[in-house]
Amino acid sequence: MGPTTFPDTTFEVIDQTLESAQSCFIEFSKKEGGQRAGFLRRIAENLATHRQSVIAMAEQETSLGIERLEGECSRTIDQIRLFAVLAEKEEWKENSCEEGEPNREPNANLGMQKENHPVGTVVVIGACNFPLAISVVGTDTTSALAVGCPVVVKSHPRHARTCQLLAELVNLAKKESNMPEGCFTLLHGESHGVSRALVSHPKTACVAFTGSLQGGKALSKVAKSRTKPIPFHAEMGSLNPVFALPFALKEKREKLIGSYIDAVNLFCGQMCTKPGALIILEESFDQKFKESLQAYVSEKETLPMLNQDVFQNYEKTSQHLAQYLDMIAQSEISSANGSGRIRIFKVAAKDFLAVSELKAEAFGPASILIIARDFPEMLAVARSLEGSLTGSMLATDNDRIDASTLLPILESKVGRILWNGFPPGVVPGLATHHGGPWPATTDPRYTSIGIKGYQRFVRPVCKQGFAELGGMS
Amino acid sequence: MGPTTFPDTTFEVIDQTLESAQSCFIEFSKKEGGQRAGFLRRIAENLATHRQSVIAMAEQETSLGIERLEGECSRTIDQIRLFAVLAEKEEWKENSCEEGEPNREPNANLGMQKENHPVGTVVVIGACNFPLAISVVGTDTTSALAVGCPVVVKSHPRHARTCQLLAELVNLAKKESNMPEGCFTLLHGESHGVSRALVSHPKTACVAFTGSLQGGKALSKVAKSRTKPIPFHAEMGSLNPVFALPFALKEKREKLIGSYIDAVNLFCGQMCTKPGALIILEESFDQKFKESLQAYVSEKETLPMLNQDVFQNYEKTSQHLAQYLDMIAQSEISSANGSGRIRIFKVAAKDFLAVSELKAEAFGPASILIIARDFPEMLAVARSLEGSLTGSMLATDNDRIDASTLLPILESKVGRILWNGFPPGVVPGLATHHGGPWPATTDPRYTSIGIKGYQRFVRPVCKQGFAELGGMS
Repeated sequence: MGPTTFPDTTFEVIDQTLESAQSCFIEFSKKEGGQRAGFLRRIAENLATHRQSVIAMAEQETSLGIERLEGECSRTIDQIRLFAVLAEKEEWKENSCEEGEPNREPNANLGMQKENHPVGTVVVIGACNFPLAISVVGTDTTSALAVGCPVVVKSHPRHARTCQLLAELVNLAKKESNMPEGCFTLLHGESHGVSRALVSHPKTACVAFTGSLQGGKALSKVAKSRTKPIPFHAEMGSLNPVFALPFALKEKREKLIGSYIDAVNLFCGQMCTKPGALIILEESFDQKFKESLQAYVSEKETLPMLNQDVFQNYEKTSQHLAQYLDMIAQSEISSANGSGRIRIFKVAAKDFLAVSELKAEAFGPASILIIARDFPEMLAVARSLEGSLTGSMLATDNDRIDASTLLPILESKVGRILWNGFPPGVVPGLATHHGGPWPATTDPRYTSIGIKGYQRFVRPVCKQGFAELGGMS
Repeated sequence: MGPTTFPDTTFEVIDQTLESAQSCFIEFSKKEGGQRAGFLRRIAENLATHRQSVIAMAEQETSLGIERLEGECSRTIDQIRLFAVLAEKEEWKENSCEEGEPNREPNANLGMQKENHPVGTVVVIGACNFPLAISVVGTDTTSALAVGCPVVVKSHPRHARTCQLLAELVNLAKKESNMPEGCFTLLHGESHGVSRALVSHPKTACVAFTGSLQGGKALSKVAKSRTKPIPFHAEMGSLNPVFALPFALKEKREKLIGSYIDAVNLFCGQMCTKPGALIILEESFDQKFKESLQAYVSEKETLPMLNQDVFQNYEKTSQHLAQYLDMIAQSEISSANGSGRIRIFKVAAKDFLAVSELKAEAFGPASILIIARDFPEMLAVARSLEGSLTGSMLATDNDRIDASTLLPILESKVGRILWNGFPPGVVPGLATHHGGPWPATTDPRYTSIGIKGYQRFVRPVCKQGFAELGGMS
């Protein structure tokens, strides 16, 4: 692990990079879709060819382990190929036409043809927890390249060498497919100043960030202070509440508690969709519930956290939660340094409602069990929540009436709802939505995973009267 | 005209209004599309029934004149009916599904169904120059209502009684179609404090503003200082450059100059798409060109401006431009007080490039003739421009090579391109795009006119695993 071996990019180089991206924008965006598809497929192939060295490097720099990294690498390659198809088919242009009406009163209607165009240079600042899938060649970068936006990626300081290796594969693909030099650049930076300079640069057209609420807020502030505003898309903290209705808990308590603890501990809770709260009724909470939960927690392995920073933050957040809450279950200390113990806290709904600090995400395997006196209090908890990426509902047919009351509240709070399932459950596709109201993201109308991720990077241009010069458009 | 007769809304009433909008959100958004369509059709019918009194009031409060207001009223009714169809057909939900793969590795894919949901309460702050079509029942309001967002409109102080009359028609329709009281409210406010309170209110989910760059910037700043960011959509100033290529000017100079002056003087230049700059080559500019232009300007009627504020601003802006530029044509003084004289200024491209003040909009019938030494200098002017709602190109077949070089630059600068035509040419439909890069709007990915105006007010929600409980979604 250790510190990055790359010095921080200077402001001069940042400026040159953005200038170079800007100057190739028209050339790059006017390439045929098939050519950009070829470029993306070369990236996917280069990653497939060098997957062992990339995974080995990511294993050195993170503690995610081979199995997870193998899966993540395959998903990343699949995603790149999905975006190659998008580039090729050009469906992202969403072409729509309206015939003219030359005799329209009071003015002639010239006819309109509208299609999407790329917005310009996109800056990508990736996540610590997905060194492959939400990084140098993740959805942000590849969806932007697919639609013709030059991309400048800021490497993550905790896995900078993995980023560098990935960037070399992209640079190779760039040459192999004859793409302009400026269409992709990786820059390094341990200091936040590098990110700030990228976000505030006048030639940056859009930013895609994945990270903590704190980091997202800080960069959002930089974006807001620009003279010329640009879209700043951040995917940040998310509580991901799970509502368990009484009949569901009556009928399959053991299974649900087990799945809940699995979801909390998945990749040591370092997932943006980790369920940070389980909301149940008082009638569902008895000694048996508590014992089952404790048993599942004690059975689970305590996993290593991504790095020392993340571990220390988790310890701090846990201590903070412990000030307000009872810890009712905790997994064993692991012999490995920097491992994240599962911690389940318990709170009465009325206390949860009173303390706003509890509504934020703890990055790591912690979760809060919220106990509502009755169903109206459960609804009050739902209404009090901030935005999340996901919300889940555990229910059976007998819970149907309560579920239908809860559902519209959940719809107004989250970007994705799982029915009798626990997050993540992310499947990158056309119907994927990985987004949600603040503080989950800065703009709930967009997704950072799945095909529609490109929508952040296009804007429509309407043309009128072009029919007379066929092919001009 | 005179000052508004309505006192400023108090902060207490603003708070109650947003609270009442919020509390009916789920009820209103869960109405069937056909019911909201019925509501919109009632608004359209009420406006059709009372059109004479609405137009009479707007004529009293503005100087737009009966003919223009008649046309605007018909367009407004048509627009409302378009959005009724949108509400009824529910195409705005953009439903997309992906089948599950229960045996998918490593995890089962539960299947996904994604559709758009309304974002919440929308605040609408309308324009001074369209008291009907971009006001209380304009695209902003009716597209938001169509998709189930409660709307709070801030009336325009220069035509507040027209706003009040329109709001009464909406309130009547609300009762007639049994819609919740909080789904629509008009608030008055001469003071900017009312707008600021609406934009910063925690229960506001999105803002649609049409007005000046100065007003848009000020409210954008308020939106940016919110703890919880929301989309703030402003349609503001726009230069709307027109590029006239040499063969086009050779072949149809008289017609083009006439159309240019007509477009500059349309509704006294008080259009967001008024062409604020005509860019030509030095070779096209001779004594004959100048004389034709002067003749057309002197033939045109000097029209009354919207109100005294607008007139005084126009005089100030004109004086400012005159500091840097030669005025080569000006229309006659009108006997009517507060009329806006057409003013055409001339500047060499190299001077235009050097002075950034010239790139902003002058609201009124002023326009700048920019003379480029050669085609590369014309391209330099194109590259130097800020974002605009529209850009136009006047060209013939002989200009084809230059036009194809210019086109991608224009595409990167504007939201709509007119080929051999002058703005406005706005036709509200599916392919309409009335938007553009800053400072034309705060987000070029959205349109404030046409069917797609609703896209500002929806966000996707993805559901997984709901198949097992049919009808639950």
